[in-house]
Formats: sequence, C-alpha cells, structure tokens
Amino acid sequence: MVQAEQGAPLYQQLAQRLWEGVDRASMADGERLPSVRLLAAQYGVSLTTALQALRWLETRGYIEARPRSGYFVAKRMRRTKRTGGAAETKHASAKRWVRPVAELDAQARDHLAIAGAPSAVRLDLASAEATLYPVDRFSVLLRRLAYQHRDLLVGSHVRGSGYPALRAQIARQAIQYACELDPDELVVTNGCVEALNLALRAVARPGDVIAVESPTYFVLLQMLRALEMPAYPIPCVPESGIDVDALKAALDRGVPIKAVVTVANGNNPLGSVPSDAAKRALVELLRERDIALIEDDIFGDLCFGDTRPRPVRAFDEGHGNVLLCGGFSKSLCPGLRLGWIAGGRFTERVKALKYTTSMATAELQQAAVAQLLAGGGYALHLRRLKAALQSQQHALRDAVMRYFPEGTEVTRPAGGFVLWVKLPGIDGAPRDTRTLFERARAEGVSFAPGHLFGEGGAFDDCLRLNAGNRWTSELDAAVRRLGELAAQAEPIVAA
Amino acid sequence: MVQAEQGAPLYQQLAQRLWEGVDRASMADGERLPSVRLLAAQYGVSLTTALQALRWLETRGYIEARPRSGYFVAKRMRRTKRTGGAAETKHASAKRWVRPVAELDAQARDHLAIAGAPSAVRLDLASAEATLYPVDRFSVLLRRLAYQHRDLLVGSHVRGSGYPALRAQIARQAIQYACELDPDELVVTNGCVEALNLALRAVARPGDVIAVESPTYFVLLQMLRALEMPAYPIPCVPESGIDVDALKAALDRGVPIKAVVTVANGNNPLGSVPSDAAKRALVELLRERDIALIEDDIFGDLCFGDTRPRPVRAFDEGHGNVLLCGGFSKSLCPGLRLGWIAGGRFTERVKALKYTTSMATAELQQAAVAQLLAGGGYALHLRRLKAALQSQQHALRDAVMRYFPEGTEVTRPAGGFVLWVKLPGIDGAPRDTRTLFERARAEGVSFAPGHLFGEGGAFDDCLRLNAGNRWTSELDAAVRRLGELAAQAEPIVAA
Repeated sequence: MVQAEQGAPLYQQLAQRLWEGVDRASMADGERLPSVRLLAAQYGVSLTTALQALRWLETRGYIEARPRSGYFVAKRMRRTKRTGGAAETKHASAKRWVRPVAELDAQARDHLAIAGAPSAVRLDLASAEATLYPVDRFSVLLRRLAYQHRDLLVGSHVRGSGYPALRAQIARQAIQYACELDPDELVVTNGCVEALNLALRAVARPGDVIAVESPTYFVLLQMLRALEMPAYPIPCVPESGIDVDALKAALDRGVPIKAVVTVANGNNPLGSVPSDAAKRALVELLRERDIALIEDDIFGDLCFGDTRPRPVRAFDEGHGNVLLCGGFSKSLCPGLRLGWIAGGRFTERVKALKYTTSMATAELQQAAVAQLLAGGGYALHLRRLKAALQSQQHALRDAVMRYFPEGTEVTRPAGGFVLWVKLPGIDGAPRDTRTLFERARAEGVSFAPGHLFGEGGAFDDCLRLNAGNRWTSELDAAVRRLGELAAQAEPIVAA
Repeated sequence: MVQAEQGAPLYQQLAQRLWEGVDRASMADGERLPSVRLLAAQYGVSLTTALQALRWLETRGYIEARPRSGYFVAKRMRRTKRTGGAAETKHASAKRWVRPVAELDAQARDHLAIAGAPSAVRLDLASAEATLYPVDRFSVLLRRLAYQHRDLLVGSHVRGSGYPALRAQIARQAIQYACELDPDELVVTNGCVEALNLALRAVARPGDVIAVESPTYFVLLQMLRALEMPAYPIPCVPESGIDVDALKAALDRGVPIKAVVTVANGNNPLGSVPSDAAKRALVELLRERDIALIEDDIFGDLCFGDTRPRPVRAFDEGHGNVLLCGGFSKSLCPGLRLGWIAGGRFTERVKALKYTTSMATAELQQAAVAQLLAGGGYALHLRRLKAALQSQQHALRDAVMRYFPEGTEVTRPAGGFVLWVKLPGIDGAPRDTRTLFERARAEGVSFAPGHLFGEGGAFDDCLRLNAGNRWTSELDAAVRRLGELAAQAEPIVAA
C-alpha cells in the first residue's frame, strides 16, 4: 500500500490517491496510466506535481516508464484495498486547479522585492558593477546614432527580426569560435529571457515536459511554471555540467521529454563547462531522439581561459536541432536589454512568436551594439571583464573559505559571475539556507537561496553568491557576517 | 442528419463527425458534450476549429449552450444512423494536431514579408510617417540622457516594472481624461503588443475562449492563435463599436468566454468610439459575470475632436477588472517600442509574467519619454498629429470615393490611422480582396486585406488602408490604380 505521511508534500498525497485510483479501477499489470496532462486536470494539481507523483511511484516500483509511451502499472506489484478519501478532496482540488499558475511563489517574490531594494549588499543577482562595462563608449555611440540616424527612432516595427547590422555582427562573432549562424535565422530579442521564452514556446506546448539542469537558473524554473511546462531535473555537476548518461537513462525509461534546456558554458549557478566530447554526445543523443535542445549561451563569452568554449550548437552540424540563445546583458551592457536567438529549424516559429509577443525590439541600442562589435573593442573589453570577474571570484571564494563553517563546499567556476556554496550539515541534517536568507536579509545582505534553483528540496542547503562586484572591505565584512549566520543556521527538519 | 458538403471547411467536417459521435454513443437529449479543449484533442484539430464546429451545430439546433456549463445535446432533435468515415481520418487528424500552432498562416506571413519590403507604396500598416513624430526632440533628449544618466545603460534589470518617472507620467496623463491609474499597478512593456500578450496570459489559459471585436486588429488574432486561445467574434460597427447586447446574448447562451478584448477608442480597423453609456454597460456586464476585460487604448490619444475619450477602464470604479494596455508607438515615437499595462486586480500576475517573458524594458527610452511628457510638449504634438491624420484621412477617403467602384463603403473614423473599405458585390457575390491583394502587391501597392481581421470569411470583401502618410500625387496614383484593380476584382466563389 502506497502510504503518504501526515503532512506529506502534495505530490506524495497525489501519488497515494493515484495509486488508489489504479486499485479502484482494477487496472491490470502493464496497463497504461493517463498522461501527465490528464492527471493534472483530473486531480486538480499542477503538471509539475502530477509528474512528481508519477516519478515517486516509479522510484518505488509501483509503476514503470516505457520509452515514448508513458507510465504503466508495474508487473508483479502487490495491490491493496483502496482506503477512500479521494472523493472528499475532489472539490478542494478542483479549486486548486483554477488557481492562477502564473503567480510567482513566495520566495521568488521575495527575490524580486530584494532586487528592487538598492540599499542591500548585493550578492544575489548575477550582475557585475557598472564600472566593468564600457558605459562611456556606449554613451558616445548612442549619442552619435541618436544624432545621425534618427530613422532608428521610427521604423523598427517593420524589422521584427532585428537590426540587420547587429544580426550580421552576431553571426560574425560566432565564427570566431567555429559556430556557424545564419543572420537570417537570428531574431533579436528583449534580453536573453525573451529568447528563452520564445525558444520554449517554439518547441513545446503547455503540458510538455522540459528537461533542465539541476541546479539551474531560477528564472528558467519560474518561466516553465508560467508556461505550464513541467520541469524534469537532470543532474548537473560543477566539473562537467549536465549528466548526459542520466538524461539518456531518463529517455530510455520513457520520460516524455519534449525539449532540453542547457546552460552549457559557464552554467548558472555551477560555472561548469562540459568537454567538447560531452557536448557532442548531448547534441547527438537529442538529434537521434528528435528532441529539441535549447541552449542558453549568455555566459559563453565570460568563460575564463584562453579559448572561448564552443556552444553545443557548434556540434549540431547543420541539423538545426539546437535553438541557441544569447545576449549582451552579462558581457557587454546590462541596461540595453538585448538578447538574440538562432532558431535553427524552428526559425519560422520563433519569428511568428516574436511577432505576437513583442513585435520588434527597439533599434537604437541594437545599432550601438552592432557598431561596438564592428569596431573591434569587444575582445579587449572581454579580456578586462573576465580578468576582473576571475579575481573577484578568487577573493569571494577565499572569504567564504575563511568565514563560513568548516566543511562548506564552494565551486571553482570555469566562467561567469557566481559561486555556488553548499553548507555542511549538522549531525547529518542539512543546514537551512531559507531561514539564513531571511536573517541575512534583515541585516542588509542578500544572496540567492538554493531552493530557487531546483524543486523538491535538493538545494535547500545551498546558496549562490554573486562575484560581479569589486572586492571591498564592505563586501568582506558582509561575507564574514554571512559566514557567522551560516554557522548558526538551523538544520532542516524533515516534514 | 448533419451533412457537410464536399470540400467543406474543416470545422463543418468536424461538426459532422462530432454529431456522428453523439449518435454512435447514443447520447441522450440534454446530455453534455465534451469541452472545447477535449474535443480539440480528441479530433486532432485546433481549439478554434472545435469551437466553430460546436457553434455550427448550435446554430442549426443540434446542440444548445447553457450558461457557464457548456454545450448539450438539444432536445427534440431527430437522430440518424451514423455514416462512418471517422475511423479512416483518425490518423491524419492526429498528425494535424501535432502541427505547430504557433506557425503563422500563409496570409499573415505575406503580410510580414510585405512589411519588410520598403519599396512598396505602404497602405498596409497602421503607421504614420516619420515627419509627423517629434524625432528631433527625442534625438536631443536621448543624447542628453545618454550623456548625463549613464546609469540608465546599466541597471534596468532590477526594475522590471519600468522606470519610475515614466510610470508616474503615464498615471498623470490618464488623470487628464479622468482615468485613475496607480503607478504601482503599471508595468512598462516592449510595445503595446507585449502588454496585450501579458494581459491575455494573466487572465486566461490555453483553451480558454476570448471574445474579440469583429473585425479586429489582426495581430490580436495571430496572438490568440499562438496562445491557443480560441477567438469568439462579437460584432463591432463603425458608429458605436462593440455590440454589448450581442456579447450579453453570447454569455446568456453559455458561450464560455473567459475574457473580452476591446479596442474601444479609435478601434482598429473601424475607427469607432463607443458612447460613455456603452462603455459603462460593457464594464458593468463583465464585472457582473466576473469576466476580465482587456482594453487596448493605443489609439485613445489619437481620437479626433476636442475631448479625449475616456477608456472603458475609467468606468470600472476601482474594481480592477479592466487590464488597460497602452503605448507610445502610434502617438509619440514608433521606434522606441514602448508600451504599458495597468493590471488592476491582475497586477501581480502581470508582473510575474513580465519577469519571465522579458524581465525588464530598456530604460534609456523610458526616461526620454518621461521627460518629454513632463516637459509639456506632448499636447501640442498630439494636436498637430491628429490634424495631419484627419486631413490625410479626408484626402484618402475622397480618393477612394473617386476611384473605387460605385457602391464602395468607407468608414468615417473618429480617430486613428486607418480607413476600412468594403467593396460592392457583383451580382450579389462579394468581391475578393485576397486576389486583389496579390495583384496590387505585384504592382508595388500594399494594403491589409480584410480576411486578416476576422475568421470565417466575414471580411473577405474588405480592406484596410493606412492614412498615416502625407497625401502626395504618388499616393493618389496608387489609390487610383487600386480602384481600377478593385473594379476588376473577381467575385468570391462559394466553396
């Protein structure tokens, strides 16, 4: 008998009810269960919860997944009598279903609130301070363009794919790391977030399961929730990124994955960069299975070392199965809000979605970025920015090692802005970074708490720290205080 | 027996198969039919087609709608034996279901292609020529801001709702026409298109039926298709806008409308402005039924006459049931791509969706618009722009009356950019503006063909002409040629 504990998470309660349903319907061994989408509708829960419930039953051997088919009642599993109770909760769960899925959860809202409070010591966002960007150069470029090319203020709505010179420059940049992009497949977006949003909607529909790296960028998880696409986590490790074998195993088990999102180069939050062999294995696996790959390469230009790592897309060999998303908000100038997407074989869909999502992107800043890239100052700027980020990461890492409790683990990122920190447990119980977050916040220090980066509590003892700020004694003091609070952090009590 | 003709539209074929299914299942009079969403999935068609099929059966008395419940088998309707045929088409229709819904239809793609061809005489887009906008003023403002406020190039990602000074100015503008907006409910968007997209997603989910004006702005119809929200047309007339009685009748018949979109002031394409009484009736009807109203007020500032008409939202009296969308692309400067939304009671959801759709809007142009509005030059600019639009509309209208076939009907818009033209029939058969569109296009003259503005062929003999360009002899020649081609246009042959 599947038995969820008192106060168990919703998905466990659902798993129990689901199994009761299987029992009640006298479903035979090997009989197929309803789809995730149907279950969610029937039981009045989110798609994520429905999928979690199925996986919970699967890991316990009640049901089994089959490739491309769904979930089936496992053979040789003993049945028990039903215990009732489902009928009573029907009305309540139907109400739950109509709850707006687009609402942010409380923690994400906290995060937004903090993002809007400029007084705090900002260790939360993945952003570098203004002095690290060529703001003066952009000031000159924008002023010149606003004077000489006033047409940029008028006609952008007829060029929904973006300013031609910028699309050409993006393709030219990519050639430098042996990644062929066609300017005609490029669409300029309002930041990389819009690129990701368009990519997801181009390849998947509400209810479709999207595999994501675990841990991953929390805005991606919020985005999937808003799009009603359940996220299926694939382990990701600091040394080598996404676990392609685990992804393959999930596909072989029949998890109905519609698309995979990877932040391969300079993964957020791990800072990992997979080997070229791993990238090739990923792209080939997904091509074989006809599953789209969405790649977020916004940190690609910010990977340390002499050679800019190639995006996974570079290994696609013209099949067009990778939707490559990039942007300039991390590497060049955050306030211009410019991103881009190379849609591959999904280009027409991406363009159609751009048309009805925001129609076009303002052109003045597109022209400015195009001129900066054409002028050749980008390589020098990147060298400086990467050197600064690397030295700031060293300083921040040293401070964490010095001030945080013994046993704290910190990543050595291969690129990007952030460090990922795992707190040591207390007598085997993990330390809670949610409460730590609240306490640090009360003292004016913000960070990104681990639970935002995955579902199911896997990262509740982790936190992400931003190394984008120049190292100062004020920062040192903030990390010291954070370390003291971390030492006092409470263990997580099992529900 | 429901009998679709050979070569009948897909929805009629579906209606036939649906009724065969009712028959086969021996459903009793008064029994409830599956939901639109389920039917679409079962029969492998779009939600729009499923809804059309149900309405086709309804108008013929086979089924009946009940308020808030759905469709039911009508009483006293004679049944016939099924004729088979559904099984054979099952596979084909399942394939059709996986066809990406986000693809633009062929005509919309034509329209995009034309929009990208700058050589044509542009009577297609609702846009005014550059000389009618304060481009020089923006050039000065942008240059000054790019010099003095370089912080605008850096920090916008922490202010996802938009630049505070702009939100304050939007609220201040609205006070002038007695519409109270709270700066805290405002979110600045990448054009009014993003505002509409966020509004729809804030109040409805895929599968939910959205009532729209008929005819309406074609980007809205494409957007609904991309969002998988079936559009339910409500008649809209040049004199008074949306027919509130028809909307009420549809609701009373049980059409499951989740939200209504209105372009009340200066409707696109009709140029209508409803009376205040009609606006109040609309807002009260929807509040009573707990149905959200999305108002696109992008043409509100461009209505002729001395008094700026109040948006429908002004009659909401604090209930927050109206999501008001606006923007500056039509009235102030097209290339800045700035819009906004006042979310009312849906504000939190709108903000959450903005966060995962594009995160934030670039701030440089927000600050420029805020300064222009604060400087007080907007009222003067609007007077000039409206005078130009009105005189251009007169010239265009006169030319249409002169050159088009006798019996052509043309609107006298109360505002906005466009004229809506209905061609006279030939021996009772409507003239086809699709083929006219192709022929005119071949001669370098573009317009927006009527079929883009509604579904089901209601506007296939109409066209929309843009009066945003200064009247020239070249335009006169283009309209004359268009009139000649219209005189030769073929009648639409019934399928």
